[in-house]
Amino acid sequence: MIVTEEGRSARKRRSIMEAAATLFLRSGYQGTSMDEIAALAAVSKQTVYKNFADKERLFHDIIMGVAGTVEDFLRSVGDTLRDTEDLETDLHTLGRQYLQVVMRPQVLQMRRLLIGESARFPELARAYYEKAPERVLTALAPELSRLHDRGLLAVADPDLAARHFAFLILGTPLDKAMFVGDDTGFTAEDLDRMADEGVRVFLAAYRPAEPGSNS
Amino acid sequence: MIVTEEGRSARKRRSIMEAAATLFLRSGYQGTSMDEIAALAAVSKQTVYKNFADKERLFHDIIMGVAGTVEDFLRSVGDTLRDTEDLETDLHTLGRQYLQVVMRPQVLQMRRLLIGESARFPELARAYYEKAPERVLTALAPELSRLHDRGLLAVADPDLAARHFAFLILGTPLDKAMFVGDDTGFTAEDLDRMADEGVRVFLAAYRPAEPGSNS
Repeated sequence: MIVTEEGRSARKRRSIMEAAATLFLRSGYQGTSMDEIAALAAVSKQTVYKNFADKERLFHDIIMGVAGTVEDFLRSVGDTLRDTEDLETDLHTLGRQYLQVVMRPQVLQMRRLLIGESARFPELARAYYEKAPERVLTALAPELSRLHDRGLLAVADPDLAARHFAFLILGTPLDKAMFVGDDTGFTAEDLDRMADEGVRVFLAAYRPAEPGSNS
Repeated sequence: MIVTEEGRSARKRRSIMEAAATLFLRSGYQGTSMDEIAALAAVSKQTVYKNFADKERLFHDIIMGVAGTVEDFLRSVGDTLRDTEDLETDLHTLGRQYLQVVMRPQVLQMRRLLIGESARFPELARAYYEKAPERVLTALAPELSRLHDRGLLAVADPDLAARHFAFLILGTPLDKAMFVGDDTGFTAEDLDRMADEGVRVFLAAYRPAEPGSNS
């Protein structure tokens, strides 16, 4: 009985967050009222306020929820690279995953909304940046360092190398999506190719010189 | 007399645009009224409407004005690379310039505002993207192709190579600035170093194999 009650409460909470996200994306943060959120979620305004003290709290929880969706990818970074026996293949796999994670419509939409609201919510924007984009970089850097120690990469500055890896892959599609929306015109094949080419350039720059080569 | 009249008219137009930009950045597009713009510009509301049919037109002209500020850099791309006799030095110069142009507070602020409004103004956002970020890429690509023909680079796909050049340099500081604002914590020296390191990786990947090397 308690479980059911909790389940219903969690479902309500989720439907309020979904309704709010829909409305924020449609009308902007300022253009959305708690009344409209309650109506779309089909709950009372009282229920909305019981779950979220105010509209700002609701926005915060939605944004940080999106940030939390990188968790699986963060685990994948470690799992894939830690004991790799085929670095090239594994980096390609990771590059494609990375681009797919970032290019999910939900992530792109919330990113655009948050950037637009970042002057009003500087702390939330910074918290998101630290929990999602930057966190991937800080997860990647020590793995690149480890690969350096194993002699598989030549990485003098792991933080910088992580940034190069990230933006060789994400740069173009992410920047374009910020302006033109989800419909960048890139197909799944285009994205895979961009990831592959980014990894190729990364490896060309960061692979250790082969013994006996001239460089 | 006519010249003076024109000068005064241009000054008024500029002061209206500056007032509008200030208010848009402070209160958002929706949160700003034509009345407030007129008051801050110290002109009559009639003068505002004589110069700009409506608030949307004003926003459009501000955004496209910012896009136009890449013109000097676009010329520099051609001038610097066309007959280069020291590619490495010239690419470093260009890389630093590029990052400086994009990281100007005015550009960053308008970029954030436009991204936030891109759902409401999809055509304007696309027009900006095509006139500024994408235009740099399309100016860069044929220069890289020419450098390939001269044997100074090995570039199979000039469009893709232009994107790699761009985001190796811009990626981190630009993405961070979208969330945390102008105050990214990066000094001018940090930015120069990021540009230099981006160019280094670009050259490592795109320099032709030296005759006699193993690769």
